[in-house]
Amino acid sequence: MTYKFARRASQLKENIIKEVLKVTEDTDMISFAGGLPAAELFPVEQLKAVCSEVLTESGEQALQYSSSFGYLKLREQIVARMSKIGIVTNTKNIMITTGSQQALDLTGKVFIDEGDEIICERPTYLAAIDAFKAYSPNFVEVSMDEDGMLMDELENTLREHPKTKYIYTIPDFQNPTGRTLSLQRRKQMVKLANEYDVIIIEDNPYGAIRFTGKSLPSIKQFDSEHRVIYLSTFSKIFSPGLRLGWICADETIIEKYAEQKQASDLNTDTLTQYIVAKYLEMFDLDEHIANIKKTYLLRREKMLQSLEQYFSKEIKHTLPEGGLFIWLELPESVDAMILFKECLTEKVAFVPGEAFYTNHPQKNTLRLNYSNMNEEDIELGVSRIAKVLMEHYPNK
Amino acid sequence: MTYKFARRASQLKENIIKEVLKVTEDTDMISFAGGLPAAELFPVEQLKAVCSEVLTESGEQALQYSSSFGYLKLREQIVARMSKIGIVTNTKNIMITTGSQQALDLTGKVFIDEGDEIICERPTYLAAIDAFKAYSPNFVEVSMDEDGMLMDELENTLREHPKTKYIYTIPDFQNPTGRTLSLQRRKQMVKLANEYDVIIIEDNPYGAIRFTGKSLPSIKQFDSEHRVIYLSTFSKIFSPGLRLGWICADETIIEKYAEQKQASDLNTDTLTQYIVAKYLEMFDLDEHIANIKKTYLLRREKMLQSLEQYFSKEIKHTLPEGGLFIWLELPESVDAMILFKECLTEKVAFVPGEAFYTNHPQKNTLRLNYSNMNEEDIELGVSRIAKVLMEHYPNK
Repeated sequence: MTYKFARRASQLKENIIKEVLKVTEDTDMISFAGGLPAAELFPVEQLKAVCSEVLTESGEQALQYSSSFGYLKLREQIVARMSKIGIVTNTKNIMITTGSQQALDLTGKVFIDEGDEIICERPTYLAAIDAFKAYSPNFVEVSMDEDGMLMDELENTLREHPKTKYIYTIPDFQNPTGRTLSLQRRKQMVKLANEYDVIIIEDNPYGAIRFTGKSLPSIKQFDSEHRVIYLSTFSKIFSPGLRLGWICADETIIEKYAEQKQASDLNTDTLTQYIVAKYLEMFDLDEHIANIKKTYLLRREKMLQSLEQYFSKEIKHTLPEGGLFIWLELPESVDAMILFKECLTEKVAFVPGEAFYTNHPQKNTLRLNYSNMNEEDIELGVSRIAKVLMEHYPNK
Repeated sequence: MTYKFARRASQLKENIIKEVLKVTEDTDMISFAGGLPAAELFPVEQLKAVCSEVLTESGEQALQYSSSFGYLKLREQIVARMSKIGIVTNTKNIMITTGSQQALDLTGKVFIDEGDEIICERPTYLAAIDAFKAYSPNFVEVSMDEDGMLMDELENTLREHPKTKYIYTIPDFQNPTGRTLSLQRRKQMVKLANEYDVIIIEDNPYGAIRFTGKSLPSIKQFDSEHRVIYLSTFSKIFSPGLRLGWICADETIIEKYAEQKQASDLNTDTLTQYIVAKYLEMFDLDEHIANIKKTYLLRREKMLQSLEQYFSKEIKHTLPEGGLFIWLELPESVDAMILFKECLTEKVAFVPGEAFYTNHPQKNTLRLNYSNMNEEDIELGVSRIAKVLMEHYPNK
């Protein structure tokens, strides 16, 4: 039979994430594609102790249905962690999600009617585009420079699009560019949001992974009118297999999210919530983060060095102060999607930049991840990409 | 500020599930409200061994991102379990979901455009209504008798609604009524679906919990044209805190579900999938199910006895051969929502029937769950409801 799917299910273009994930299942492949944390750093032994403790102390509760808002104790611990980065909040302002991806999906579900406009960085996180797209908004992109989204262009965009529902931004070590929004622009963004009466979705999965420079206050800290919705996750600082993120927002907004979450999956995995809460009680997550940062810094260094060593000066790349990604701009004539396919035969992968645009992609760009490969493979992988570039584009 | 939510977020009426869950947090309350399994029967000790084994053997994989389709080994085990109930399938036809609730949400996401028509039983599962409602369909209800959905009425409905996308049905021990669709009607439903070219969503969370009578073949077994989508879950037979369900459907359909799942939460909790897969390898789930069935049968018996003993003959109730629920029809003048509020002061709760209708609720109905309370509390709770009924409706 011919199936009649919803328009949203029919309209998806070639699914780049799926292609990329398929490719990275090949164990011979040096993959700079996914945003995967280094699995060898997961606190496996500690988690054995944690699981045993959770099941002994509260097995029955940990295996039962639980609140759509999330496990209260975990929300208390998140409130405490948020206060350390300067966000004063309380449990009524926190909802647990099934990974940060669900927070993005629910953001679309709670705010977007078909045809609503939403503003995002150009380029922006590809899976956020997919999450929002399910609710059929019109995307409006705002350009960036090394200090993040351009405020003049944002203001013009807000003026020209008075029905904008929200601005979606990743201020710290943005995915895909690795760029960080400057302090002055954070304040400015809140000012503009107040003036034009829109919501800000501040997506911050990477903020805790800073190697150099000084931490900046979150946009949420300048939120004078309860219009900033802050999203974060344990995926990059702990484990992404444990699907656990959170939303911090005004209580009225949290109530709406919880209603839609209930309709989406009732509650986030209860055992997982108990495990993370118990881990936070028994061990020092910040010590763990310090540990992974050491490794990621070495890998970033190796990748930057390799780019300098193997690539021509014509190829521009960002210099992230933290996070997991470096963004490359190739000479204009190079289509990174074609390069991607050529690189696969050399057993090296990345994500072609076009995946990160909602329209008119800049095709000569690509994203490199450095957290998931060891230093040796980082150098080898970069040299392979350089080799393909030289062979296929000898003048570049 | 005044927030501008999407229409779907603004239109939700008084949220009955949320009310009911809030109420049942009161530990003094005898609650027949939720569909909660008995927590004292969860295999906590076995799970300790399982968690330790999973983390020892495959800690790194179990804590990492994983496939949107689900963990292959678990899908193989599900294929094997499906074959035991007569459904011959393979892993390409299986996708893992974050509980069965996510399967319902994704069903709406994959199939429903605003204004599409979907057919369901009258009454039907309240959280399925919420899940589908997010995608703004028009619900069309078909009446039931003791043998499930009425086929004459279904045929008339399909004829009158030629743009129907799917029929949603819970054939075994339906939620909320406990009724089972007869064998003859299962065949007839597939015949009608073929004739009118619609999909059937067969939601089967309770099928394995049969106390009496003979198991019936699933609707999926009569699926001659790949149009039946079968949903099930480990929630009722194992643990609902481990959010784990699955979809079995034609590969083309599974691909669409996987795309939307990726946008919704990337993948189901990896550790949870490893835990359940390892449990299925180390222990005998069917033995566990036999065990919980013994307890649930005693509880069902106690509830039926108590209803006979304390309630007047005028009050009708269903006689489920399995599952978790009994459905009551009170005298027409009784509004079960008012009764619910009166019962709360007597510390007994249930779900008012109106939650299970998409329109024109039959207000003199209610759902009782018997799996989550011990026999003593079942009798006490039923006697309390009877007392409230007598006091407030002395002629009933």
